[in-house]
Amino acid sequence: MALKSIDLNSDVGESFGPYTLGLDEEVIPLISSANIACGYHAGDPAVMRRTVSLALKHGVGLGAHPGLPDLVGFGRRAMEVSLEEIKDFVACQIGALQAVAALQGARLRHVKPHGALYNMAVKTPQIWDAVAQVMAGLDDRLILFVLAGADRGELEAIGRRRGIRIGFEFFADRAYNPDGSLVSRKLPGAVIHDHGVVAAKVLKLVNEGKVTAVDGSDIDLRADTICVHGDNPQAVQLVKQIRAALSAAGVAVAAPQPTA
Amino acid sequence: MALKSIDLNSDVGESFGPYTLGLDEEVIPLISSANIACGYHAGDPAVMRRTVSLALKHGVGLGAHPGLPDLVGFGRRAMEVSLEEIKDFVACQIGALQAVAALQGARLRHVKPHGALYNMAVKTPQIWDAVAQVMAGLDDRLILFVLAGADRGELEAIGRRRGIRIGFEFFADRAYNPDGSLVSRKLPGAVIHDHGVVAAKVLKLVNEGKVTAVDGSDIDLRADTICVHGDNPQAVQLVKQIRAALSAAGVAVAAPQPTA
Amino acid sequence: MALKSIDLNSDVGESFGPYTLGLDEEVIPLISSANIACGYHAGDPAVMRRTVSLALKHGVGLGAHPGLPDLVGFGRRAMEVSLEEIKDFVACQIGALQAVAALQGARLRHVKPHGALYNMAVKTPQIWDAVAQVMAGLDDRLILFVLAGADRGELEAIGRRRGIRIGFEFFADRAYNPDGSLVSRKLPGAVIHDHGVVAAKVLKLVNEGKVTAVDGSDIDLRADTICVHGDNPQAVQLVKQIRAALSAAGVAVAAPQPTA
Amino acid sequence: MALKSIDLNSDVGESFGPYTLGLDEEVIPLISSANIACGYHAGDPAVMRRTVSLALKHGVGLGAHPGLPDLVGFGRRAMEVSLEEIKDFVACQIGALQAVAALQGARLRHVKPHGALYNMAVKTPQIWDAVAQVMAGLDDRLILFVLAGADRGELEAIGRRRGIRIGFEFFADRAYNPDGSLVSRKLPGAVIHDHGVVAAKVLKLVNEGKVTAVDGSDIDLRADTICVHGDNPQAVQLVKQIRAALSAAGVAVAAPQPTA
Repeated sequence: MALKSIDLNSDVGESFGPYTLGLDEEVIPLISSANIACGYHAGDPAVMRRTVSLALKHGVGLGAHPGLPDLVGFGRRAMEVSLEEIKDFVACQIGALQAVAALQGARLRHVKPHGALYNMAVKTPQIWDAVAQVMAGLDDRLILFVLAGADRGELEAIGRRRGIRIGFEFFADRAYNPDGSLVSRKLPGAVIHDHGVVAAKVLKLVNEGKVTAVDGSDIDLRADTICVHGDNPQAVQLVKQIRAALSAAGVAVAAPQPTA
Repeated sequence: MALKSIDLNSDVGESFGPYTLGLDEEVIPLISSANIACGYHAGDPAVMRRTVSLALKHGVGLGAHPGLPDLVGFGRRAMEVSLEEIKDFVACQIGALQAVAALQGARLRHVKPHGALYNMAVKTPQIWDAVAQVMAGLDDRLILFVLAGADRGELEAIGRRRGIRIGFEFFADRAYNPDGSLVSRKLPGAVIHDHGVVAAKVLKLVNEGKVTAVDGSDIDLRADTICVHGDNPQAVQLVKQIRAALSAAGVAVAAPQPTA
Repeated sequence: MALKSIDLNSDVGESFGPYTLGLDEEVIPLISSANIACGYHAGDPAVMRRTVSLALKHGVGLGAHPGLPDLVGFGRRAMEVSLEEIKDFVACQIGALQAVAALQGARLRHVKPHGALYNMAVKTPQIWDAVAQVMAGLDDRLILFVLAGADRGELEAIGRRRGIRIGFEFFADRAYNPDGSLVSRKLPGAVIHDHGVVAAKVLKLVNEGKVTAVDGSDIDLRADTICVHGDNPQAVQLVKQIRAALSAAGVAVAAPQPTA
Repeated sequence: MALKSIDLNSDVGESFGPYTLGLDEEVIPLISSANIACGYHAGDPAVMRRTVSLALKHGVGLGAHPGLPDLVGFGRRAMEVSLEEIKDFVACQIGALQAVAALQGARLRHVKPHGALYNMAVKTPQIWDAVAQVMAGLDDRLILFVLAGADRGELEAIGRRRGIRIGFEFFADRAYNPDGSLVSRKLPGAVIHDHGVVAAKVLKLVNEGKVTAVDGSDIDLRADTICVHGDNPQAVQLVKQIRAALSAAGVAVAAPQPTA
């Protein structure tokens, strides 16, 4: 009998020069996939090296976390960029991190766009496609993390067309609309602060493939990876609680098991 | 009987965003190795892509041209950086260009540090060693271009120790000291402006393995590649004259033939 | 009897580090207001100094040309920024150029936002207001250059509210809609390439305060300054032709004469 | 009878975008001069605005803290830059902060170069002179903070020649050589960690104008301002202890009292 398992991913490596951001030392041992900043929205070459090293030490899968070229805005401000520009940005960021990983004898496992780039892709799936095209050209074993939800068929089609695997991502602390999309952060209740509720949602997702939407209805939501955070002590505490809940339920935390 | 051949390399891909620098369209068809800027001292992701494409169209070997992170200073200002910082910079730059090349089905052939980084390495050979170490970890087929001259034995030892090939570079338009080092640019006569003289020096180097130093003595100087320039019409004209002289002497312009 | 006069403004000082952009040496002697890049979308501290010097040499009014912080995109890519961020950007850019001017014994005369920031302001007049607020806090003699056209009343109200002067700008080589707005660059005919037509439009504007819109109708359009370009030899040639036409008609080219 | 007083200065405003550095909220109420980063080595336009606001709230003198353009290196890496480049950098940084201050109805009181730029100036006094020249051109009431020690006469001469005031700075937690220079950080004992010792050194300096050098000899060292730190809780604690010692001794902490 196969053990159930789920991936936990977190954004890490977002320090820069003299600046420290995130509790990477604490959260990396708790996750199975590390989304490592590549220098455009955060991170620098030394931070990339140290983060790869830390992830490898804990057996955590390495992933590129490419963002828009906007350090002061942390890649959170949407920019009017073409698909060609996005492909160029993403290629250079993945390539740089591939080199950093190669120097430590490792390779990348996944790619998860950051911040505004991720949000732009959710609205404009051609961006997912552009990222997938770059990934396929660099290493077709790479898994693209995308938002699980409304447009699963379209995203799976992108994966098939480009020949790469898609990993669907669940946001444990976010409320969902009945159509599977995230409730806008501008609305009250968009972010769930009760750790027990979040852990219960994770278990329900893993065990039943369902999430309870804001209207109370249960919707189907299959996911391969759960996004957690390590940017403050409370966030790290939540990850520990999620791991404990998973462990108690006999669910392993492990490298991505994407849809075939 | 094997044809004699020599490599011609030039710095290219140094445009940035709205800015054009260098006559890449004109010089790339004339050379055999393209030193492509990687975004730290010049170049940007789109320029990298277009330059790789142009080089491939003309069958020119792709090389990374990593520099110090100083765009406004064009990587020409020495900076107090550690060997570790240099390795990090170089890894990220080579990796980014490897990705750009891979997306066009190609791989890099060589690495030539830029500007202040090159000059720092000439003074501090541990920098050559640091670059060689990174290259060996990324792709041990890469050739490191270094200054031909005084310390050949030490540079060959670095290549052997790191397991990468060293390509010795001759500066066709620069005067040499009797010990094989370059005459400082601060001294009169450091740069040779007469195109006929430069072409004759290239032929002498290729045919005899010798260069006439500033004191009139002939010194041994074996080189695998000759640095030429494409940043202005006169420079391109000189490359044409060098090629014509080589052609008349039965010397092919071809990919690097480094010391084994 | 007072001579008629009009201002000619051009974007200058957009070189950066090793990169040259624009024929500043040629166009600055032909204009009366220089919009000088301040380092965010183009320009660097040395370029700012040299451009201020060149403008002063030719008696040209100094203006700040603040842009979005996007060097590689030349400030042409819209970014999702708050009004507070815009005020911060603009303050730092104007302040830097004020210092450069002060070191040469001069002061700024006007401010014209650049590229995407200008276009964003045309769509979102609160951005004009934010810029005006910053200007009033720094030097209330500064004139804000805005697009002449549809919403004159609203822009004049901003000037009155903030206590600064508004200078309305006419784009000599752009087609206008009957409502006074510019024809989108995405439509054919948006840019007028015939130099004679452009010069005639300038004269008509200056003499009659009218422009012929794309539907053939004449609309009222009062302007204080005309935007010209110096980024290529043809553009400079056009500026010469405009000056010749103005001269023949007895119109002086002179510092901004904004609406009181 | 006039109260004795001394200035306490600290580097602040060194956060950037999403990154927080330094306990500005805690240290600013304890000091009398704030050295505010201007965006080259640290700081960004929003951080500059917030830091100016915080300093004004606590009646602390505003100062520009210009650095080398090296964000990732935090302005700590020496760069080969010309005096002209330094003047350009410093002008743009002071100008930007002047604008930010002006928008809050305030003006700058002093300028203190940061990190590598400060250290380069200590070795190469022409750099102090270049900075002084820029300051005189911008606002001759500005005070230049320089290292108190060996070359007082030369520094005073620079102030007289440029027409600006010089403020001599004492490093409370650093050991001094008998010639008045700082003991190199590469040597053991360069930094004094015992808070009681540091506070006693401050009192001796203020009361006697003397510091005990590493060889046990007392040397004359007149200073106008004392550099303290706010980058960690221990540093803030030390500032509190210094203030307490000064208060007990009847010495006020107040704005710079430079040599006339």
